[in-house]
Amino acid sequence: MNRIDASHDPGLRSWVDSANAADTDFPIQNLPFAAFSRDGEKTRIGVGIGDRILDVAALAPHLEGAARAAAHACGQPVLNPLMLLGAPARRELRLALSHALAVRAGEPEAWLRSALYPQSETRLHLPARIGGFTDFFASIDHATNAGSLFRPDAPLLPNYRHLPVAYNGRANSVRCEPDIARPRGQIRIEGDDLPAYLPSRRLDYEVELGGYVGTASRPGRPVPVGEAWDHFFGFSLLNDWSARDIQAWEYQPLGPFLAKSFATSVSPWVVTAEALAPYRGPARPRGEQAPALLPHLHDAADQEAGALDITLELHLRSARMAQEGLPPVVLSRGNAATLYWTFAQMLAHHTSNGSSLDAGDLLGSGTVSGAGRDSWGSLLEITRGGAETIRLPTGETRGFLADGDEVIITGHCERPGLARIGFGQCRGRIVAAGAQA
Amino acid sequence: MNRIDASHDPGLRSWVDSANAADTDFPIQNLPFAAFSRDGEKTRIGVGIGDRILDVAALAPHLEGAARAAAHACGQPVLNPLMLLGAPARRELRLALSHALAVRAGEPEAWLRSALYPQSETRLHLPARIGGFTDFFASIDHATNAGSLFRPDAPLLPNYRHLPVAYNGRANSVRCEPDIARPRGQIRIEGDDLPAYLPSRRLDYEVELGGYVGTASRPGRPVPVGEAWDHFFGFSLLNDWSARDIQAWEYQPLGPFLAKSFATSVSPWVVTAEALAPYRGPARPRGEQAPALLPHLHDAADQEAGALDITLELHLRSARMAQEGLPPVVLSRGNAATLYWTFAQMLAHHTSNGSSLDAGDLLGSGTVSGAGRDSWGSLLEITRGGAETIRLPTGETRGFLADGDEVIITGHCERPGLARIGFGQCRGRIVAAGAQA
Repeated sequence: MNRIDASHDPGLRSWVDSANAADTDFPIQNLPFAAFSRDGEKTRIGVGIGDRILDVAALAPHLEGAARAAAHACGQPVLNPLMLLGAPARRELRLALSHALAVRAGEPEAWLRSALYPQSETRLHLPARIGGFTDFFASIDHATNAGSLFRPDAPLLPNYRHLPVAYNGRANSVRCEPDIARPRGQIRIEGDDLPAYLPSRRLDYEVELGGYVGTASRPGRPVPVGEAWDHFFGFSLLNDWSARDIQAWEYQPLGPFLAKSFATSVSPWVVTAEALAPYRGPARPRGEQAPALLPHLHDAADQEAGALDITLELHLRSARMAQEGLPPVVLSRGNAATLYWTFAQMLAHHTSNGSSLDAGDLLGSGTVSGAGRDSWGSLLEITRGGAETIRLPTGETRGFLADGDEVIITGHCERPGLARIGFGQCRGRIVAAGAQA
Repeated sequence: MNRIDASHDPGLRSWVDSANAADTDFPIQNLPFAAFSRDGEKTRIGVGIGDRILDVAALAPHLEGAARAAAHACGQPVLNPLMLLGAPARRELRLALSHALAVRAGEPEAWLRSALYPQSETRLHLPARIGGFTDFFASIDHATNAGSLFRPDAPLLPNYRHLPVAYNGRANSVRCEPDIARPRGQIRIEGDDLPAYLPSRRLDYEVELGGYVGTASRPGRPVPVGEAWDHFFGFSLLNDWSARDIQAWEYQPLGPFLAKSFATSVSPWVVTAEALAPYRGPARPRGEQAPALLPHLHDAADQEAGALDITLELHLRSARMAQEGLPPVVLSRGNAATLYWTFAQMLAHHTSNGSSLDAGDLLGSGTVSGAGRDSWGSLLEITRGGAETIRLPTGETRGFLADGDEVIITGHCERPGLARIGFGQCRGRIVAAGAQA
């Protein structure tokens, strides 16, 4: 379990002015990691603070012990070397960064100032080398909404309340680049006898939270659910782009494949398990939880504190809205605490057959949807499979995504008495099929 | 398409005597790759010749051009660097190795002899760094047999004849180590209301062929089926271990996950696309092929020459058979040419949504089963889901695998007028749940 230490003190302020703004995602209590580069320089790991990014490796010579080793590992282009140093080193580094960036007597040192760059002058990259990507189905509201399209009388399958259902995704499809080419695929249009190979007509987003494994597990050693949280390094926003028409035709009997593998977007910022510690609490899904979870998925402390109170918003802006200078509209606002399964349960289940998890592996929550329509995290749910449409400020309507649509997921934690922390953005813009470079 | 050159000449003989034996898997016409190590030495790539393995990198100083670069890449512990050099370099290396190992005037050079080790003195390792593992369902007989257990009236789903169904496997579960721990998992035993967490009682093998991608494809650029064969580096035997009881409970609606991810075995030897060139031919699945394949999955030359005439045998030996000195029994003998879909079609489909394949990615065929029961590649099929049993020479019976059972897949190509080539063995022995190190 994470300790809540002085680095979370809501009164803590930074000498980086922009980190003290009320609406910043990156106050000094957050300190999320990203892989960044500047013109002509190599990619390395930085920490977000206000509208700046701190080149963490530049601090290494001025630190000691585990914090120094952790800062040194940030000179690499992905988080994996830092992950491999383990959670204690990461926590030492957090405390050292908090200390270095906090307001204190005297001016910050010149070497510290010179390691700070405007985020607007940097490029952000995929933060980890992801060896395995597993996507869960942890929102009972999403499972119910999606299931009701096919089985109105029994939307939830019998296994749902007993195990966190998941499938293997394709790791090399996970990316931060914003252009998302509309996939082509084999589709059987309703009423047609034969399928055709066409650009997807039912392209959708899925609002998810992604958890990066930091501490590997050992083959043949299932992780007890009570220890599972400690295996997570941090969390990102995740958009599991889905071509519903490709999926409907291909998925029997082995599950989704090409309907998902064309692209999965993650936000470049990884908010650490440490930063999220104050926002852990009891899960609050709609309806009762399973009457009797099997012991390997049940832990009293996890039931009390395993859910993450993170608000997730989905913003859409069509090409025409952008041309007309209109801001994106919010289509939904959900919360990860409404998930039926905690990330600890997902990880414990993942290892329960003896298979291992590696540093850099990514676990997606599945679409985060809550009880009300305004919290549903996919167009499939909002438009009832395209049967209804939503209206944009330009008068345009959408059943599914159109070319040029920009989809932005944001996430933040906010609670009285605590500092607000945010996740930045997970962005993607739909590009016409075949038009990509 | 692969050329059939002098390296396939059935009259070609090697100065390595054991390579000229009638029953060897590794005559000079084969030259399969493996990752090997000797006591205290680093792992590197070798080529099998009779009962020896040739340390390929040792030849590099004596070669020129592309063959030299390819031999040099074999100094690495996995095949990926060799794969990245491309098919022409691999073919040059094949010709150089064939030349070096063929009988010729005079004695072989001392440096060549000293690069040759008895296979019995080496350890073999996983031959590639596998970034992605995808498992197909390409045998129509397997799909029919498996489907008939759940849907006796309509075993084959509507999509089957239109696209090669597949799912993402878990890449880090692929291994060569022989010990396979019986997985635990959530299982709902028939008649029980609630599931339990138990060692699998319905543990099965699946006889498959695995194809390694050598030449990567580009994101957003689907590979035309007529070019897809050229992306394959080579092929191995593959056992997709399956816990049928875990699978039955977990797989709805997103497909198999923990029922498969505990282990997937591959044979350590990779038989190259070049060595298999003479054994390509028309597919011969039972029943008619899809009346009208979509153009992106159809290529006349692939229809004529895309199937691989490889006999696959499944051998089983119980612990008691081993104690009594009995040899393994053959449970089935199938042929990869009976697959409904060619590997070129699988690869073309895989990339048809714009997702890319990388060097080292592994595509499994799915269980290879033919028309007759003696060719069925899983116990699920042979015992009708455990409803029947098979009898071993000791009098023991099996519905599914017991602890101590050793499962061995072998494969070979044999045809009049051509040299017989083999794949070595894909071995696994079931270890009791929880008993692994």
